[in-house]
Amino acid sequence: MLFSFAIIIYFIVEFFSIKLINNEIERIIGRMQKIVVIGGGTGSYTILRGLKKYDAEFIAVINMMDSGGSSGRLRDEFGFLPPGDVRRGLIALSPETSMLRKLFEYRFSKGQGLQGHSFGNLFLTALRDITGNDAKAIEEAGRILNIKGKVLPVTTTDSHVGAILENGQVIVSEVNLVIPKHDPRLRIKKVFLVPKAKAYKPAVESILKADKIVIGPGGLFYSILPSILVSGIKAALKKSRAKKIYVCNIMTKYGDSTGFKASDFVAEVEKYLGKGVLDYVICNNKKPSKQLLQEYEKEKAGFVEPDLKDTNKYKVIKTDLLDNIDLARHNPDKLAKTIMKL
Amino acid sequence: MLFSFAIIIYFIVEFFSIKLINNEIERIIGRMQKIVVIGGGTGSYTILRGLKKYDAEFIAVINMMDSGGSSGRLRDEFGFLPPGDVRRGLIALSPETSMLRKLFEYRFSKGQGLQGHSFGNLFLTALRDITGNDAKAIEEAGRILNIKGKVLPVTTTDSHVGAILENGQVIVSEVNLVIPKHDPRLRIKKVFLVPKAKAYKPAVESILKADKIVIGPGGLFYSILPSILVSGIKAALKKSRAKKIYVCNIMTKYGDSTGFKASDFVAEVEKYLGKGVLDYVICNNKKPSKQLLQEYEKEKAGFVEPDLKDTNKYKVIKTDLLDNIDLARHNPDKLAKTIMKL
Repeated sequence: MLFSFAIIIYFIVEFFSIKLINNEIERIIGRMQKIVVIGGGTGSYTILRGLKKYDAEFIAVINMMDSGGSSGRLRDEFGFLPPGDVRRGLIALSPETSMLRKLFEYRFSKGQGLQGHSFGNLFLTALRDITGNDAKAIEEAGRILNIKGKVLPVTTTDSHVGAILENGQVIVSEVNLVIPKHDPRLRIKKVFLVPKAKAYKPAVESILKADKIVIGPGGLFYSILPSILVSGIKAALKKSRAKKIYVCNIMTKYGDSTGFKASDFVAEVEKYLGKGVLDYVICNNKKPSKQLLQEYEKEKAGFVEPDLKDTNKYKVIKTDLLDNIDLARHNPDKLAKTIMKL
Repeated sequence: MLFSFAIIIYFIVEFFSIKLINNEIERIIGRMQKIVVIGGGTGSYTILRGLKKYDAEFIAVINMMDSGGSSGRLRDEFGFLPPGDVRRGLIALSPETSMLRKLFEYRFSKGQGLQGHSFGNLFLTALRDITGNDAKAIEEAGRILNIKGKVLPVTTTDSHVGAILENGQVIVSEVNLVIPKHDPRLRIKKVFLVPKAKAYKPAVESILKADKIVIGPGGLFYSILPSILVSGIKAALKKSRAKKIYVCNIMTKYGDSTGFKASDFVAEVEKYLGKGVLDYVICNNKKPSKQLLQEYEKEKAGFVEPDLKDTNKYKVIKTDLLDNIDLARHNPDKLAKTIMKL
């Protein structure tokens, strides 16, 4: 009896000393910062490319509601989850000069049925068919591409985004929001998912363990909000002790965020996420050149006015985030630097 | 004057001492045996998979006249060299359990325009387009797949195989020989290349430096003979001090080698290669089961009788090379063991 008691005591002491040693090791070598990026498409790609240069652990939680282009064709024909946004995440986190990265970026310019297909999408589709599992395919692709960090699907439910317009019209599928078949002047009143999607468990865990969570930039109604709508994501974001950062778009998009100011973007995000969750909002305050703005005007897109002020909930960072290219896009390095400083 | 002379003497001594040291190092560590396999398709694939288990340097010199199936579609649409046989060589030499190998073996079973395409072929096509060079693309693919050895194209000339039948009819393109549109009972009198193809220099060099060169097995007129027909290959084979080994097919193929015995195969090879070049001929002497032979009879294919005897030119090895599967094919291990023993 006394002997059993001694053994139990021994194991308890052993358990805590191991924990103590681990904590000590972590303290000495310094735990790596965990940064989760939520979104998909070009926005996440830009952020991740900039962040990758820093010494931290990166997890891209990718929107899976994409339904257009090469990705949409494969989704329809194979019945797997759309590979497009995952592909961009993988490319962003892969070594800049690797040949596999170049292959993933490659798009077939000819070939009956091949034309327009992204090689990376075909790679992910074949891998999905071989592994029999969407999440496993993404993990394997990350390993093959030797990415820095992780790419996780926000959900593995085969779900589509739907929208109710201000006139009551219902639109279903991402592609119908990006390339609107309805009157794009009509505001989107509400977005939803059909069927309801369940969060991918490792994505939830990464949110809970994160030090920083970056939401956006990207298509508000078809890329950012659908991720927040996945069951389990909002709760995880609320529960997580991470600094939650929303990065506002630089330009509006006709049919998605027509006429939006920074405050409109934040209002929409808070409508789905709840007030008091965001800790920071990052806005670009550098206007693109007149010439560039005129180009955007042709597509009825305008500059997003950074009309926000600090609240008792979140702090607003207004800074020059503009890239020096022919597009009004975020500069990966400027954006990453701003995020890392928080 | 005396000084210049001293310098020249110094460099001569230096040069030879380095050579001596190199030779000594090579002698001590033991130079790896260099084995070149000439052919393409399933034959080379089988040999290489068996050989790979041995400690030697393997170079697969691949026939580039393929024009059917997924490979042919891509050749037509992109104007690059056909990837099919190169793909099989790469798979054979890549680690057996790697995911990239599985991807290379994958074939799309659906998708408009994708169906029937081999993923490995699409991989090589994209890589060819990115690198702008057929040979470079094959080299890069070998690196990405982490292959043991090298895969080299026999030529980088965009050339097709042609055949003159016994009735004088001319057939052009490999696909028209494999899936005959002519009367397959007609014997092939002569094969040729249009346009003439020039050997890829590293392939010639590997032949010259080889210790063993294995020709075949495989489609005689559309896969083996076209490689020998490439300008520079025959001369290199004659010049090389390697042991030259011809591996005879197990079964005939209707329209290619209808009714052929082992002696007919060797006679055709010697017609293009010249007599006295081959050192060994390896023949299978184990007849497949009656049931299996009946299956082959439906496709008018028969067992190749090993009717050869040693000559003063070549030695004949007759042994059981049959695989224990539902096809009358070479067993990779039995074949490799036979080759390594020579």
